[in-house]
Amino acid sequence: MNKNTFAKHPPMGWNSYDYYDTTVNEAQVRANAEYMAEHLKEYGWEYVVIDIEWYAHKAGSQRDRFQYIPFSQLEMDEYSRLLPEPERFPSSADGKGFGPLAEYIHSLGLKFGIHIMRGIPRIAAHLHTPVKGTSVTADQIANPSSICGWNPDMYGVRNTPEGQAYYDSLLELYASWGVDFIKCDDICNTNLYPNDPFSGRHEIEMLAKAIQRCGRFIVLSLSPGPALIEHAWHYEKYANMWRITDDFWDHWDLLKDMFHRCELWQNHVSEGCWPDCDMLPLGTLGKGFGEERATRFTPEEQKTMMTLWCIFGSPMMLGAELTLLDQETLALLTNREVLHLLNSDCHARQVRLDDDCAVWTARDTKTGDVYAALFNLSDETATVSVQLEELTETFGLSENDGDSTVSVTLYDLWSGCDTNTTGTTLQSELAAHSCVIWKILRH
Amino acid sequence: MNKNTFAKHPPMGWNSYDYYDTTVNEAQVRANAEYMAEHLKEYGWEYVVIDIEWYAHKAGSQRDRFQYIPFSQLEMDEYSRLLPEPERFPSSADGKGFGPLAEYIHSLGLKFGIHIMRGIPRIAAHLHTPVKGTSVTADQIANPSSICGWNPDMYGVRNTPEGQAYYDSLLELYASWGVDFIKCDDICNTNLYPNDPFSGRHEIEMLAKAIQRCGRFIVLSLSPGPALIEHAWHYEKYANMWRITDDFWDHWDLLKDMFHRCELWQNHVSEGCWPDCDMLPLGTLGKGFGEERATRFTPEEQKTMMTLWCIFGSPMMLGAELTLLDQETLALLTNREVLHLLNSDCHARQVRLDDDCAVWTARDTKTGDVYAALFNLSDETATVSVQLEELTETFGLSENDGDSTVSVTLYDLWSGCDTNTTGTTLQSELAAHSCVIWKILRH
Amino acid sequence: MNKNTFAKHPPMGWNSYDYYDTTVNEAQVRANAEYMAEHLKEYGWEYVVIDIEWYAHKAGSQRDRFQYIPFSQLEMDEYSRLLPEPERFPSSADGKGFGPLAEYIHSLGLKFGIHIMRGIPRIAAHLHTPVKGTSVTADQIANPSSICGWNPDMYGVRNTPEGQAYYDSLLELYASWGVDFIKCDDICNTNLYPNDPFSGRHEIEMLAKAIQRCGRFIVLSLSPGPALIEHAWHYEKYANMWRITDDFWDHWDLLKDMFHRCELWQNHVSEGCWPDCDMLPLGTLGKGFGEERATRFTPEEQKTMMTLWCIFGSPMMLGAELTLLDQETLALLTNREVLHLLNSDCHARQVRLDDDCAVWTARDTKTGDVYAALFNLSDETATVSVQLEELTETFGLSENDGDSTVSVTLYDLWSGCDTNTTGTTLQSELAAHSCVIWKILRH
Amino acid sequence: MNKNTFAKHPPMGWNSYDYYDTTVNEAQVRANAEYMAEHLKEYGWEYVVIDIEWYAHKAGSQRDRFQYIPFSQLEMDEYSRLLPEPERFPSSADGKGFGPLAEYIHSLGLKFGIHIMRGIPRIAAHLHTPVKGTSVTADQIANPSSICGWNPDMYGVRNTPEGQAYYDSLLELYASWGVDFIKCDDICNTNLYPNDPFSGRHEIEMLAKAIQRCGRFIVLSLSPGPALIEHAWHYEKYANMWRITDDFWDHWDLLKDMFHRCELWQNHVSEGCWPDCDMLPLGTLGKGFGEERATRFTPEEQKTMMTLWCIFGSPMMLGAELTLLDQETLALLTNREVLHLLNSDCHARQVRLDDDCAVWTARDTKTGDVYAALFNLSDETATVSVQLEELTETFGLSENDGDSTVSVTLYDLWSGCDTNTTGTTLQSELAAHSCVIWKILRH
Repeated sequence: MNKNTFAKHPPMGWNSYDYYDTTVNEAQVRANAEYMAEHLKEYGWEYVVIDIEWYAHKAGSQRDRFQYIPFSQLEMDEYSRLLPEPERFPSSADGKGFGPLAEYIHSLGLKFGIHIMRGIPRIAAHLHTPVKGTSVTADQIANPSSICGWNPDMYGVRNTPEGQAYYDSLLELYASWGVDFIKCDDICNTNLYPNDPFSGRHEIEMLAKAIQRCGRFIVLSLSPGPALIEHAWHYEKYANMWRITDDFWDHWDLLKDMFHRCELWQNHVSEGCWPDCDMLPLGTLGKGFGEERATRFTPEEQKTMMTLWCIFGSPMMLGAELTLLDQETLALLTNREVLHLLNSDCHARQVRLDDDCAVWTARDTKTGDVYAALFNLSDETATVSVQLEELTETFGLSENDGDSTVSVTLYDLWSGCDTNTTGTTLQSELAAHSCVIWKILRH
Repeated sequence: MNKNTFAKHPPMGWNSYDYYDTTVNEAQVRANAEYMAEHLKEYGWEYVVIDIEWYAHKAGSQRDRFQYIPFSQLEMDEYSRLLPEPERFPSSADGKGFGPLAEYIHSLGLKFGIHIMRGIPRIAAHLHTPVKGTSVTADQIANPSSICGWNPDMYGVRNTPEGQAYYDSLLELYASWGVDFIKCDDICNTNLYPNDPFSGRHEIEMLAKAIQRCGRFIVLSLSPGPALIEHAWHYEKYANMWRITDDFWDHWDLLKDMFHRCELWQNHVSEGCWPDCDMLPLGTLGKGFGEERATRFTPEEQKTMMTLWCIFGSPMMLGAELTLLDQETLALLTNREVLHLLNSDCHARQVRLDDDCAVWTARDTKTGDVYAALFNLSDETATVSVQLEELTETFGLSENDGDSTVSVTLYDLWSGCDTNTTGTTLQSELAAHSCVIWKILRH
Repeated sequence: MNKNTFAKHPPMGWNSYDYYDTTVNEAQVRANAEYMAEHLKEYGWEYVVIDIEWYAHKAGSQRDRFQYIPFSQLEMDEYSRLLPEPERFPSSADGKGFGPLAEYIHSLGLKFGIHIMRGIPRIAAHLHTPVKGTSVTADQIANPSSICGWNPDMYGVRNTPEGQAYYDSLLELYASWGVDFIKCDDICNTNLYPNDPFSGRHEIEMLAKAIQRCGRFIVLSLSPGPALIEHAWHYEKYANMWRITDDFWDHWDLLKDMFHRCELWQNHVSEGCWPDCDMLPLGTLGKGFGEERATRFTPEEQKTMMTLWCIFGSPMMLGAELTLLDQETLALLTNREVLHLLNSDCHARQVRLDDDCAVWTARDTKTGDVYAALFNLSDETATVSVQLEELTETFGLSENDGDSTVSVTLYDLWSGCDTNTTGTTLQSELAAHSCVIWKILRH
Repeated sequence: MNKNTFAKHPPMGWNSYDYYDTTVNEAQVRANAEYMAEHLKEYGWEYVVIDIEWYAHKAGSQRDRFQYIPFSQLEMDEYSRLLPEPERFPSSADGKGFGPLAEYIHSLGLKFGIHIMRGIPRIAAHLHTPVKGTSVTADQIANPSSICGWNPDMYGVRNTPEGQAYYDSLLELYASWGVDFIKCDDICNTNLYPNDPFSGRHEIEMLAKAIQRCGRFIVLSLSPGPALIEHAWHYEKYANMWRITDDFWDHWDLLKDMFHRCELWQNHVSEGCWPDCDMLPLGTLGKGFGEERATRFTPEEQKTMMTLWCIFGSPMMLGAELTLLDQETLALLTNREVLHLLNSDCHARQVRLDDDCAVWTARDTKTGDVYAALFNLSDETATVSVQLEELTETFGLSENDGDSTVSVTLYDLWSGCDTNTTGTTLQSELAAHSCVIWKILRH
C-alpha cells in the first residue's frame, strides 16, 4: 500500500482534546460525530478523533494536580494492549474495544481516529505480561530508559522483531475495530531528550510497517511538535502528518509565530505528506481543563488562522465542542473557496515575511488559478502590499513583463466581492491581525 | 527581472580554486576557458570562474604561514572597490578591470564569473575612502564588528541606504565588465558567529537588489556552507545557489556525508534555486596548495559523486586543471544521459539512506521517464536492492498494483547496457563506494 | 551535627564495584574486610563499601545484554525500602538487613558503607506500597518523569514532606543496620537531563536532612560525575564527597584528564568536603564485568595516580580485589609519607599544567613543610622543572627573595632518598607518565 | 616579583567610567583625585583609574550613534603604542604621556591606573608601523581574526616572541609613566567568540610576564565578565582581579543576581586574587552617557551592595563623580568596621541563598571575630533568620554543642548598636532589599 494515498488531502476533522482534555466519553463523541455528519461533512470534514487517555480510569479526576495521574489504573488486555475504559465507553464492554463506536461513526459516513502514546504500558513491563504472537513478555521489549517527559503511561519499545510484533498486534487490534486515523504522541519530537529528540525514530518505522501489515488504510499522524526539519525526509517517508509546533492554543503570539513555521515547512507539503499546524482552537473550548470558554481569538484572528492553515495546506482538526458551534464559526468552516486551497493540486509559497506582515501566494496547477493572501501581523491597521511580479515569479511564470502594467480582478474569497485594479502592485488596508485572500483573474 | 531565469539549470563550469588556490593568472584562466570551449561546452559546461584573492598583490607568496596574507596590499579603485591585481591580470590595466578577459571568454561562447568576499575592504574603512554615489566614506558603512573568521580582507557592510549604494556600485562595475556569475563568500554561513551564523542576511538581500538594479543577468552563488536549512526560504528568494557543505574535497568521508546533506535539501531544488554540493575535485588538483596531485577519489567514487550531484541537481563546478584532463575524467564529464538529470524537469527524491547504502529515484516530468540510482556506501562489495513499488510511490504513481510482478528494461546510464528483469525488486551487486543508475523502461 | 566532622580526612577504603560489578556477596565482602583489617587498617584504610544492586535478584545473570536487568525482582520491605538480596547476603535473612554484616565489619575495627540509587523503587510506585510514617503510598511520592538514564530501578522522589519521610525512613533503617557511609548514585549529575543535570538537588538536601535526623555519623558520597562546578557550594553544604569525573578506569587518557579536573576543583577541598577522583583501579579488576585482569596502568602510572589523588586530597577507594593484592601494589598503598598529604592540614595548589607536564605544591599548615610534585604527562622521558619561587609564591610565603639562590634538601617520598641542591630551580628527569614528589627542606 | 603582593587587599579606588563614559579629561581626573586624597584616602581608597578611550580623538562626540566611534583617529607613538589624546590630557604633550598626571596623583599619596584594550591598534596593523625592540611591524603580530565584539580599536596579538615584545614595550612605557594599575578589557571573557570565550588566554600571560619584566608593582585587573569559573586557576595564577559579571549598574535585578556570582566565586578569594563584582554605581552617575542622574539604588540597596562587596572581598571601585558626593554616600564609604571585612585575614562563606534571602558569615582569622550578614532579597519586609550552629559549622568551629543555647551580643556594623540575645537562632526583621551585618560576641 502507498501510504500517500491514505491522505490525498490534508485530513479534516474534529479532535476531543481542546474541549474535553482527557475526559471525553462515548455519548460526547457520538454527539460531535452527529453534528459533523449533519453540518460539516459536505465540506470535507470527516475524521472524529478521540484524544489522549481513553484507556485510563478516573482520567481527569485529579486535574488540580495532574493532567495525567501517575501510576493510575489503565484498562489493558491480556496482550499488554490498552483498551477503552469501559465506564466512559460502555459499548467497549466484553472485549469489543472501539469496534461498536467506530461502526457507528462509519454509519454516519465519517471516519474514526484515536490517539496513542508511543510505546508499551509501563505496568505491563513491571508485571511481565505477554506480547501477542511472541514468546516474550513486556519487560523484554520495553526500554526502561525511554519514557515520555510529560505523560507517565508508557515505556518506549525496543527496535527488535518482538518489538515490531507488539506494534503489529496493536494495529491488528485497531484495524479490527475499524480505526482510520492514529495520532501517535511522544514520537515526533521526544523532547525529554534534548540531545536526541528523534529517539523514537525506529518506533515511527515500526508503526508504519505495522500499518502496512494490517491491511487497512490508516492515516498516521505524529505528535508533538516541533517536528525536526533536519528529519523531514523521514516524516515524509513514513507518516502522513506531523506537528510543526508544540501545542497550539488561542494566543496571538502563537498564531503569529506559525508564519515562521509555515515558512520553514512549505517545501514539504505534498500529497500524503502534511506538515501539521495543530488543532483549530475555535468556538467553545477548555471544559476539561476547568475553564470552559469561548476562543480568545478575535474574528479577524480566526480568519487569519483559517487562511494560513488552508493556503499552507495544514491538516484541519477542530478543537471546538461542535454541538455548541455558533453561526459565525460555522461560516468560517464552510467556505468552499477557502477550503479548496487544501486541494493537493494547490501549491503555495511564502512571498514575504517580516515582523509586520506576511504575503503568500498559491497556484492551482490544474486550473492555473493564482491566489494571493496578505496578512497584517502588526497591532495596528496597516496597508499591506505586494508586487504582482513577485507573485508570478514565485512559480516561474513571468520573465520579462514584470514592469508592464496589468489589469486584474481580485476575487475576495472571504467576502465574495470582486475588485478591479490596474498597475503593478496589489494592496489592501487591513485591520490589526487581519488578512485578505484573493483569487487573481487576469484580464 | 526574475532571478530564477538566470539559472534555469544548475550552473556548470570551472572554478580556479581547487587547482590554483589564490594564485590563478590571466593566461591560466584563458587556457582553461579555451579547453572548455573546445571539449566541454557542447555538453553544457559554460561558466569560467576566478576564485578568491584576484585583487591581492603577492597572493600565495606566504603559503607556508597564511592562505590569505593579513593586511597585505589589495588593488582598489577610488570608490573602495577591489580591482584585478594587474601583474596577474595584465589586461586589467588602465582601469579596464575584468572587461577584456570577460570579453575574450564571451567570445568563446562561455560565461564569466568571479568570487567576492562579503563586505568592503578593511583598508578602505581605515583610510576613509569614498563610496560612489554617496557623500559618505567607507568608515561610515563598514561594520567594525563584522569580519570573516578565516579571511582578513573585508568588513561587513551596514544595512543602510549608503551600504546599498556600495553594493550597487559594485554591481555597476561588474556588469560593465560583463560578469555573469558571482560567488559571494562569507555570507551563506558566517561561521565566526556561531550564535548568529546568518548575520550576513541583509547583505544577501542588498546583493540581490544590486543585481536587479544593474540590469544584467548575473547568477548569485553563496558560500561557504553548510547553508542553514531553517533559512532555506531566504536563499531561495534571493540567490541562485548556496553551498550545503563546508569545503568539499576528495575524501570518501566527505562524499559519504553528502548523502545526508542531499537528503536534507532535496525538497529545495527547483528552477533558479540550486543547493550546491560544491566543486568536483576531479583530475589534477592542488598546485596552489603546494601539493599538485591527482584526485584521491577512485574511479568508482568519481562515478558515485557525478551520479549523486546530477540526480540531486547540484551545480557542477569542476576543480580540475582542464588542460591536464585525462580521457577517463573527460568521459565522466561528457555523459549526456547522466547530465540530462540536471534538467529542471527532472525531480528527484531519496528512497532510502542508511549506513551501507543509498537509493534515489528521479522522474522527468516532461517525458515521464523514471530513474533509479543505487549506491553501495559500505567498504565492501554488496548487493543493493529496492522495491519497484518504492520508486513509483515516491511520485505518487502507484496505488494498488504494488504487489504485482512487472517486467522492465533497465538502461544503465554509465555503461549504456540494457538489462531485462521481471519481479518486484531491482538489485545490483556493486563494488565498494560504487553505484549504478538506470533509466527504467516498463514493458 | 556538623557534617564536616563525619569526614575530617578524605575517606579511605574499598569498594566492590571495580572487581565484582553487581555481583558481590557476603563472603566476598567479609574476605576483603578481613584483608583490610590485617594489612591496610593501620595506614588509614577503613571503609568497606558494597556497591550497586545488592538488592537485586539474579544481578549479573544477563551480563551480555544488561548491566542492570530491567524490571527484575528487587528485594523490598513492606515500606518500599530495598533490602539485601538474601541469597547473596544470607545474614540478612529474617529482616536483619545489613545489620549482622555491619556488625562483623565493625568488629574488625572498620566502617561499613553501601551504595544506593536516588529515589524509590519503580515497582513500589506501580504497586502503590506504603511509605513508613505517612498515610501515602509510593505512587504519591514518586515522580514518573524522573528516572536514571542508565539504571532501571528507581523513580526520583518529589520534594514534599512525604518524600522527606521516605528518606527519613531509609536512614532510620540504615542507621539501625550500622551504616557509616552512603554512596548515592544518579544524584551528583543527573545526566539523562542535559538541560537540568542538577535535577536531584532537592534529593541531596533531603538525604542530608535525613542523615541529621537519624542521629548517626554517616558520610554522604555523591555520584556520578562530573560534578557541576557551578553548584560547588551546594555540594560543600550538604555532602562530604562528590565525584568530579564520570567513571574512572585504568586508561592513561582518563588519568591525564584528571589533572584538569583537579585544577578545577582544588579550591573546594576542605575538612568534610572532598571532591572525589573516583576509585583506584589497581591490582586485580573486572571479574564481574567478564574480564578478570590486572590493572592496565603501568607501575609509573600507578604512582602518578596515587600521588595526584593524595596531594589533591581525593577520597581513596580501592577497586582491587584485596585478597589478590601483590606486594608492589600493597607498597603503593602503605606509604605513610604520601598518605600524610591527605591530612586536612595539608593544602595543595596546582603550579603549572600544560599538555606535557604538571606541577603541584602543598603545604602542611601545622608543620610548615612544603612539598612539590612534578609529573611528566608526555609519552617520552622528559625533564620537568619548576622555579622554587613559584612554589613559595603559591602560598604567599615569598616576596622579595625570589631571585636569590637557596640550598635545599629534597626528600623523595616514594624512594625515601634525600638530594641536596642549590639554585633557583628544581628539576627531575622523569619517565613517560611518571612523577616525583619531594618534601623540601630548606637549609 | 610575587604578583600576589601587588594587591594584598582588594584594591579600592575610583574609576571614571560610570560618570564620564569615554570623555574624562585631565582636570576632571585631578579634581576627583583631590577629593579622594582629602576625604577617602584615610579609609583605604587609593586608586584613581582612567577608563576607556583616553587615546581617542573626539571620543564621545557621536554618542547618539556610537559609544566607540569606528575607525576614528587614535593618538599613537612611533611604536604602535597608544598615547593620551593631548587635547583632553594637556600635560601629556611632548611625549610625556601620563607621566605628569601620575606624578601629581602620587604627590597626593594616591595610585594611578589606566584602562587598556587587549591587543594592538588596528590602524597600526593596516599601516605596518614598527614594534619596539623587534624588526617586525604591527601587521606581523596582529591577528586579523581576533577582534573585540563591542569596541573597534584593536586586533589581538599573536602568541609569538614579537607579540611578547609588543606587550613588553607597552609595560615599559606604562612603568615609565608611573602606572600602578591596569584594567585590561576584552580579555577576561572574549564574548564575541561564544565557543572560545577564553581566546585571550595567552594575552593574559603575556601581560603578566610584561609586568614582571617592567619591574614595577602594577595591579592587573581583567574585564569584562563574567569570568569563566572553569578557568579560575588561570586568573588566580596571572591576575590580581577579574570581573565576575558583565557590566554592573544600578538595577536591583543585577544586584540580586550578584549573590549567585558571589556564591560561585567565594572559594577563589585570597591575598592577591580578588574576584571583582565591578564598580559601585553610587552618587551621581551617567553624565558621559547623556543622562546625568543620581544612583537608582535606594539607600537600603546601597547598604546591601556595600555589605556584600565587603564581606565577599570584592575590589571596591567607585563610579560616582566624587566632587558631587553627598554626606549619606560618604558615610557609606567610610565605615571602618564594614571596610575591615576586606582585610585578607577575613574569610567569608555563604550560609544560605534562596530567592528570598541570603546569609553570609565571615571570620577574622587573626582576631577570631565572627560576623553574620543577613539579606532580605524579597520585595517586602521580612524576617531573615539563621541558626547560630550554621555559622559556626561553616568554619569547622563547632561539633557537639549545636543544640545548646548560647548568649551573644550582636554588634550592628552599620548602626553601631549592640543587642543581646539568647537562644539558637539569630534573626532580624529587614525592609525589602535591606540587610544587617553583625559582629557576634559570645558571652
